[in-house]
Amino acid sequence: MDIWKVVDELVCTRRVPGLHAASLRVLEGQTGERMVATDPVGVPPGKWVFTTLGTAARYAMPDPTTTTDLTICGIIDQWSQT
Amino acid sequence: MDIWKVVDELVCTRRVPGLHAASLRVLEGQTGERMVATDPVGVPPGKWVFTTLGTAARYAMPDPTTTTDLTICGIIDQWSQT
Amino acid sequence: MDIWKVVDELVCTRRVPGLHAASLRVLEGQTGERMVATDPVGVPPGKWVFTTLGTAARYAMPDPTTTTDLTICGIIDQWSQT
Amino acid sequence: MDIWKVVDELVCTRRVPGLHAASLRVLEGQTGERMVATDPVGVPPGKWVFTTLGTAARYAMPDPTTTTDLTICGIIDQWSQT
Amino acid sequence: MDIWKVVDELVCTRRVPGLHAASLRVLEGQTGERMVATDPVGVPPGKWVFTTLGTAARYAMPDPTTTTDLTICGIIDQWSQT
Repeated sequence: MDIWKVVDELVCTRRVPGLHAASLRVLEGQTGERMVATDPVGVPPGKWVFTTLGTAARYAMPDPTTTTDLTICGIIDQWSQT
Repeated sequence: MDIWKVVDELVCTRRVPGLHAASLRVLEGQTGERMVATDPVGVPPGKWVFTTLGTAARYAMPDPTTTTDLTICGIIDQWSQT
Repeated sequence: MDIWKVVDELVCTRRVPGLHAASLRVLEGQTGERMVATDPVGVPPGKWVFTTLGTAARYAMPDPTTTTDLTICGIIDQWSQT
Repeated sequence: MDIWKVVDELVCTRRVPGLHAASLRVLEGQTGERMVATDPVGVPPGKWVFTTLGTAARYAMPDPTTTTDLTICGIIDQWSQT
Repeated sequence: MDIWKVVDELVCTRRVPGLHAASLRVLEGQTGERMVATDPVGVPPGKWVFTTLGTAARYAMPDPTTTTDLTICGIIDQWSQT
């Protein structure tokens, strides 16, 4: 599971039906790369989170038919970044 | 879900039957790498999109038997690229 | 779906039974890395192709029980490489 | 299967229900990148381990419905790192 | 499917039950990175092999319930490394 910092909410009006009304977050990784994840936890910007990808990303959503490949699984309480 | 810019349509006459008549787009990533994605949304070149990969890429297509591993899921309205 | 140039046929006498008699190709990527893919299309060396990976790689084969994770899906007609 | 060094336990109070009470470990890879894995083995910090990802990460857990994508599979006895 | 050189056997006494008694090999990639793979073929160190990952890694094993994500699929007879 990858470690990311939540940067922002993603604004997206046109999307595929399979995403339903899932909340989307823009994440920034340890080397500055950016990704989009579905967020069932409700995480404010600035927090460190870890995500699950692949089929597990769907099972981590309340509705497992959501067409996502990256879902926030938890907020990290402490994180000593090197 | 990855973030990409749509570069072009992909012209491809010889392809496997499982791709059916899916629209294909050439995408460019944040570090300049290029990929091909199926496009159920209908995105013109120049737009920023996010994609889902793996099995979720098939479920994001109207026909989930399409043999794709990368599908455009939505157009990003605003995007502050760093 | 990734973009590759077909470099060569792969010669391999000892292989797992699940690969059946699938044709194998050595591919070269945009940064010079090399991979092996199953080829249901029949692509000669020198052509640019795109591939699908993961479970979709199996569904793109005529026999979906083939134990592959990368399958050539089509020949790219035109390709403006940057 | 990737090779990692166990760095620390991950403290995380808010998490998705699908993670159950699985132990989480922070791992460091060969190039310094950090990941989070579920740990069914019980590995102390400082040990070298190898992990499985994707669907196999779930099957490696005692409860295969755990929403993980990276699970520690074993402790490496000897490891000559180059 | 990735291309690797077999470096060594992996010694590992404590492992998850799902790995059964599968033979494990340490592989070295084209850029020097190291991975662990299950080996149903029986490959001695020094040989070049190609592997399959994800769910196909399990189907390439004699026992497809083995919790692996990387399995050696064949020995490459000739290999012109650039």
